[in-house]
Amino acid sequence: MSDGSGELVLASASSTRAALLQGAGLDFCTIAADLDEAALRRTLLKHNAPPEEIALALAEAKGKMVSARRPEAAVVAADQILWLAGEVLAKPADLAAARQQLLRLRGRHHDLVNGLCLVRDGQVVWRHSDRVALTMRNFSEAFLDAYLAAAGETVLSSVGGYRLEGPGAQLFKTIEGDYFSVLGLPLLALLDFLRDDGVIAS
Amino acid sequence: MSDGSGELVLASASSTRAALLQGAGLDFCTIAADLDEAALRRTLLKHNAPPEEIALALAEAKGKMVSARRPEAAVVAADQILWLAGEVLAKPADLAAARQQLLRLRGRHHDLVNGLCLVRDGQVVWRHSDRVALTMRNFSEAFLDAYLAAAGETVLSSVGGYRLEGPGAQLFKTIEGDYFSVLGLPLLALLDFLRDDGVIAS
Repeated sequence: MSDGSGELVLASASSTRAALLQGAGLDFCTIAADLDEAALRRTLLKHNAPPEEIALALAEAKGKMVSARRPEAAVVAADQILWLAGEVLAKPADLAAARQQLLRLRGRHHDLVNGLCLVRDGQVVWRHSDRVALTMRNFSEAFLDAYLAAAGETVLSSVGGYRLEGPGAQLFKTIEGDYFSVLGLPLLALLDFLRDDGVIAS
Repeated sequence: MSDGSGELVLASASSTRAALLQGAGLDFCTIAADLDEAALRRTLLKHNAPPEEIALALAEAKGKMVSARRPEAAVVAADQILWLAGEVLAKPADLAAARQQLLRLRGRHHDLVNGLCLVRDGQVVWRHSDRVALTMRNFSEAFLDAYLAAAGETVLSSVGGYRLEGPGAQLFKTIEGDYFSVLGLPLLALLDFLRDDGVIAS
């Protein structure tokens, strides 16, 4: 399906993002950027950057790192942050932290904010961001413990301590947003750009 | 996770729906209804029924058939129809029909309309419907042929001749609606009812 020109690189270690690109029929390789995300996030938060700008800055930093190694490639980089009432929540370090985080999110609204960009020869040639609005239901602590026991360590791989494709669905009341953006990759916007840019066939 | 009371049965042969329920951590078994969907759909269309009513009537008919075999169980039944400018499109019979259908959908807006219900002892105790709005991009015929070659017979398993989890994503410009509804099962609404009903733990 991707009989256009140019090598495509996904600057991400996320298996979900790779699965989406693969599902769409694209040929690409994956190179994870070795970025100190926490440090960059802290700097941006100190400057009161809006969540879209934080997600984009993280995506761009990852994309540029990988582009330095593959200057001729079209490097796709993405980031997703969890925005709760003006605060960015980071991936929980362990199950106890995940439990605390889910108790904070319980019964409340939060956003998942995506930043996505394409970098070529060190230059950001395209950027895109969007949001998904989610509301958790007011689950019991007994439910939460059963959820954590069922989901196990997988909750640590997600920024919010949940995977919607798994038992995490049971935590939610409503989810509003683009199908692909929920999964951390605004795929339709990306495909649109890649076609315009001649990377994939239209 | 589903330590509530009562046996849960999914009246559907769709592997996607089963995967969503399984992902959410529910215990259930699957019994496909042996319904002449085309005949019922024709009757409903003759009476100018709106798409929500058609999808619900099909879901309810399937749910009642399976409930007759398992009266004590909570039977979940679902249907999804493709609504294009006042017309219901059926699953394509072969690749040539899928090609024709995709050419009709090209560059246009259509809706996927879900009907979902729960049947117990032959009675519909809950019903829910929603819509997802999709717009296909104006792809070339060369692209379409490459798509059909890549996707193969899998396009025949979907009402619109596409699977968004696969190369079908490349056919679209926008997709607006609930994450789970796109996949043919409004999961959050269903989980909400199952909790209220005591079928699963809350």
